[in-house]
Amino acid sequence: MPSYTAPLADYRFILNDVLDLQSYGDLPGFADATPDMVDAILDGAARLAEDVLQPLNHSGDQEGCTRNADGSVTTPKGFKEAYRQFTDGGWGALTSDPDYGGQGLPNVLGSCFSEMVSAANMAFVMYPGLSHGAYSAIHVHGSQAQRDTYLPNIVSGAWTGTMNLTEPHCGTDLGLMRTRAEPQADGSYRISGTKIFISAGEHDLAENIIHLVLAKIAGPDTPAGIKGVSLFIVPKYLVNADGTLGARNGVSCGSLEHKMGIHANATCVLNYDGATGYLIGEAHKGMRAMFTMMNEARLGVAVQGLSQSVAAYQNAVAYAKDRLQGRSLTGPKFPDKPADPIIVHPDIRRVLMNIKAFNEGARAFMLWTSLHGDLAHKAKDETAREASEDLMGLLTPVLKGYLTDKGFANAVDAQQVYGGHGYIAEWGAEQFVRDARIAMIYEGANGIQALDLVGRKLAANGGRAVFAWFRILDDFIAANQDDAALAPFVAGLRSVRGQLEDGTTWLMNNSLSNFDNAGAASMDYLYLFGLCGLAYAWALMAKAAAPKAASDEFCAAKLVTGRYFVERMLPDAAAHLAKLKTGAGPVMALAAEAF
Amino acid sequence: MPSYTAPLADYRFILNDVLDLQSYGDLPGFADATPDMVDAILDGAARLAEDVLQPLNHSGDQEGCTRNADGSVTTPKGFKEAYRQFTDGGWGALTSDPDYGGQGLPNVLGSCFSEMVSAANMAFVMYPGLSHGAYSAIHVHGSQAQRDTYLPNIVSGAWTGTMNLTEPHCGTDLGLMRTRAEPQADGSYRISGTKIFISAGEHDLAENIIHLVLAKIAGPDTPAGIKGVSLFIVPKYLVNADGTLGARNGVSCGSLEHKMGIHANATCVLNYDGATGYLIGEAHKGMRAMFTMMNEARLGVAVQGLSQSVAAYQNAVAYAKDRLQGRSLTGPKFPDKPADPIIVHPDIRRVLMNIKAFNEGARAFMLWTSLHGDLAHKAKDETAREASEDLMGLLTPVLKGYLTDKGFANAVDAQQVYGGHGYIAEWGAEQFVRDARIAMIYEGANGIQALDLVGRKLAANGGRAVFAWFRILDDFIAANQDDAALAPFVAGLRSVRGQLEDGTTWLMNNSLSNFDNAGAASMDYLYLFGLCGLAYAWALMAKAAAPKAASDEFCAAKLVTGRYFVERMLPDAAAHLAKLKTGAGPVMALAAEAF
Repeated sequence: MPSYTAPLADYRFILNDVLDLQSYGDLPGFADATPDMVDAILDGAARLAEDVLQPLNHSGDQEGCTRNADGSVTTPKGFKEAYRQFTDGGWGALTSDPDYGGQGLPNVLGSCFSEMVSAANMAFVMYPGLSHGAYSAIHVHGSQAQRDTYLPNIVSGAWTGTMNLTEPHCGTDLGLMRTRAEPQADGSYRISGTKIFISAGEHDLAENIIHLVLAKIAGPDTPAGIKGVSLFIVPKYLVNADGTLGARNGVSCGSLEHKMGIHANATCVLNYDGATGYLIGEAHKGMRAMFTMMNEARLGVAVQGLSQSVAAYQNAVAYAKDRLQGRSLTGPKFPDKPADPIIVHPDIRRVLMNIKAFNEGARAFMLWTSLHGDLAHKAKDETAREASEDLMGLLTPVLKGYLTDKGFANAVDAQQVYGGHGYIAEWGAEQFVRDARIAMIYEGANGIQALDLVGRKLAANGGRAVFAWFRILDDFIAANQDDAALAPFVAGLRSVRGQLEDGTTWLMNNSLSNFDNAGAASMDYLYLFGLCGLAYAWALMAKAAAPKAASDEFCAAKLVTGRYFVERMLPDAAAHLAKLKTGAGPVMALAAEAF
Repeated sequence: MPSYTAPLADYRFILNDVLDLQSYGDLPGFADATPDMVDAILDGAARLAEDVLQPLNHSGDQEGCTRNADGSVTTPKGFKEAYRQFTDGGWGALTSDPDYGGQGLPNVLGSCFSEMVSAANMAFVMYPGLSHGAYSAIHVHGSQAQRDTYLPNIVSGAWTGTMNLTEPHCGTDLGLMRTRAEPQADGSYRISGTKIFISAGEHDLAENIIHLVLAKIAGPDTPAGIKGVSLFIVPKYLVNADGTLGARNGVSCGSLEHKMGIHANATCVLNYDGATGYLIGEAHKGMRAMFTMMNEARLGVAVQGLSQSVAAYQNAVAYAKDRLQGRSLTGPKFPDKPADPIIVHPDIRRVLMNIKAFNEGARAFMLWTSLHGDLAHKAKDETAREASEDLMGLLTPVLKGYLTDKGFANAVDAQQVYGGHGYIAEWGAEQFVRDARIAMIYEGANGIQALDLVGRKLAANGGRAVFAWFRILDDFIAANQDDAALAPFVAGLRSVRGQLEDGTTWLMNNSLSNFDNAGAASMDYLYLFGLCGLAYAWALMAKAAAPKAASDEFCAAKLVTGRYFVERMLPDAAAHLAKLKTGAGPVMALAAEAF
């Protein structure tokens, strides 16, 4: 059976040695993140992940959720108790606003927590995870009355939340939406329509569910398409003026989707039959409010991709050390055993090193970006906040696309280490593959992330964000190019930085003349950007590790792993650059009928 | 619901225009493969695949197999009737020896058939598919009496066959095997032990199952390890002297594995409790006989990888043409519809072109190799037979590894085209992913294929096979380098041929000093070889298509698709070369404890 061990040493190294979290102690929330507090939170999260959530991961997958005849949904055995432990520990409130019961801690710490619990049990964590998107939308766009009504119970975990975008005929193109909202005399709306793929849409873990629903207001004033979409709060149980729960609202789970993975999470078809809803934010400005939820959710999904790669890696390593099969090509390493453990074989090593170098690089890149997510709100001057906001916007699609695509591919590679046992459910390797697969799809399929990157984030403000990114890299290179210990890392970063700039220039020169050039290049550009991000993260880690490497095994291993990344993974950058520069021609040449 | 259409035009193009099948009409079996006969077989196979097997693919996956209390196994609804149609049509006998009821047709035609039926229903086709390995082992290594006893019923499909290698503690390293064979006074053996992962190990489709079982003969004369393994025939029902079925033998299905995919195929734990077995071939030479089965089976698994890529592609194309979402980046293409079909988007095109260019190139490469499989037995002179045998041996691991790894990756990419629907079982895209996954693992995990390639096939006979391969490429390049219509194809082939030679030279120079260099480089070398094989196949297809392209849409599309391969897929070759040349250093540098 699979297991999970939280990588606490790596979090401490990144937070303390790489990001120097303590240097931000004068910013709101960071003051509370003292070294002792950080240690206590990491340790507590590890206990929750390892002891409470992970033991339910395989059983939850096998059992799945059940929709009962009355439309209620039963989660797998043990989930209710685990959810209680989750909320009793205040884990859902970690980064939330103290005004509503939150702990107000930095997101960068919340991202460590998210990786751990998602690695332990991705399907479980989506129940409280979705709440956080609802929290953010109400927190940013809701009225004070709405905040007071809903946020305390969402923060405590007494209630959970959902996001309702997709309909059977539209996902990416929400302008085609058919769900309608009829204005009522009391200012509320009656919501009618069908939403699909609603994660955590119905379950038995919390006493109420706060659905955030996109719909079009019925009437002649509603603009056509995406500009006519509004966002509504639709509680499963209406909330009385005194805060107690009132009548059951007209929203019900029509069915559960039969999915490839995340079986323990209830993915619902939700039917809205004249349900009472409350407009949140301005009419017809629903997409803006939804994007508040989506950007945060996209980073969360990036973390999911990483988390499955981590969990798959740990178990593949354990198998590779345990499984005796064949002898080392350079002679027996364990002559007293009937065969050597398969970790002696170079091709097994190659797979494990690929995943390890990704996991550690991706974790550092993700946490570096997450810290900028904090700074975008909390940095002292407007310039710094804007710069961090720029970076977050630029890197969110990169992280979502790259970490989930690679995270899935790594889970597949880890499964391969098991040979035939990797295909058998009881070993657990195939579950990581099936669970990881969804992260490439939801919160905007990765192709959409790539379009967001090349079509919006690159161009915004005359390319301000990407130029800032290059300056960050150039500053590092300039400051460290004479440090012999960092030579391979600086050389690798300089190389991939040059390739990324080459690709960026190509896009800027060729996209306006033919938008299809941008589309055809987008995914290779995203991968190239991801490699550049990891190269920077590895350079930062190498700089932190190098001075201690002689006496510290952890830091010595960092340098070895980072050099592997530079030597064996960065060569892909050239292939991505070559492909993206071929442009739309080869991609669009064939007539649609010839496919 | 998914569908499947056999790519008959492509088979005809490859068999007639590329491989010129008719030019081999003076060889045994080929004489019967007249154009009319080939057409009739392809059409009949298409009917079987499309009308009989494909409709059972999704239902078979959902229902799976059932092990009953008495140890018998029930296959999904409709499988028995479909199997009857399969055997009634004589489809299992297509390439078998006419002396035992076969039709003796060329394997290259059998490979077309295999791709079609596997694309339609991979789990079903494994039942008759496994029989063919048993057929080959008995045909090549069995006594005349064994051939007479077993082959006619295996060829007709009245009986099926299995291969029994793996045990719980050993798969790749069969020297660790524990299954024992006790010699009996009558010359038979009593077989005892447990075998796992036995595909089609027990089922209700045929009246008998002929298990081919590896075991060690009990006694002091049996060499230790892999050199002490013998091969036995163990029928489910013993066969009386008159050919009728006798007593039930001591072999039973202990359980069915709960797998990621191919649910409709019964993957059994088989318990041998003193079962009666008959030695096939010489004692302790079981591995040689098993390799006869495995090499053929490996090509068959390569075809499975391709087949799932083809099925996934066809359905993704249909979805991409049907699903309306968003507008083309270059302006609406269907302004009268609420949105454009998603096939207008460059990133969707990129995915579909990637898969299409792979499918057609891989099919041609596979059939070219399969033809050499025929020539290895049937060519008129010994030199030609040896040359074809060399190529088959060299290219089998390349095809198995490359076609199954890429076939799976393509199924994943095709699934991505569906967005959220790709994750939902009823759409079928996720089944192709789950089914395709096993092909990377069984018949030797792909890492083992790569080791076979660099460790044995390259070195055999002083590199004779790989040098012959380079000569074939050089001859093509020399003969066509002045043909303007073929310029991009010749240039691409020349480039990747140079990279493959570079990698080959590196391996030859660095493997002997450190065998781990070969192991660390093996998988990248296999991918590089696969790209080179497809580049050659595309060059051959371009040569056949170019003269007709002006007036023939099929041939025009070939050239467009082939140019896509050269421009957008060959750039990966340089990355594989760069990685493999880093050698064992970065791969082996980390201590096992540091993983």
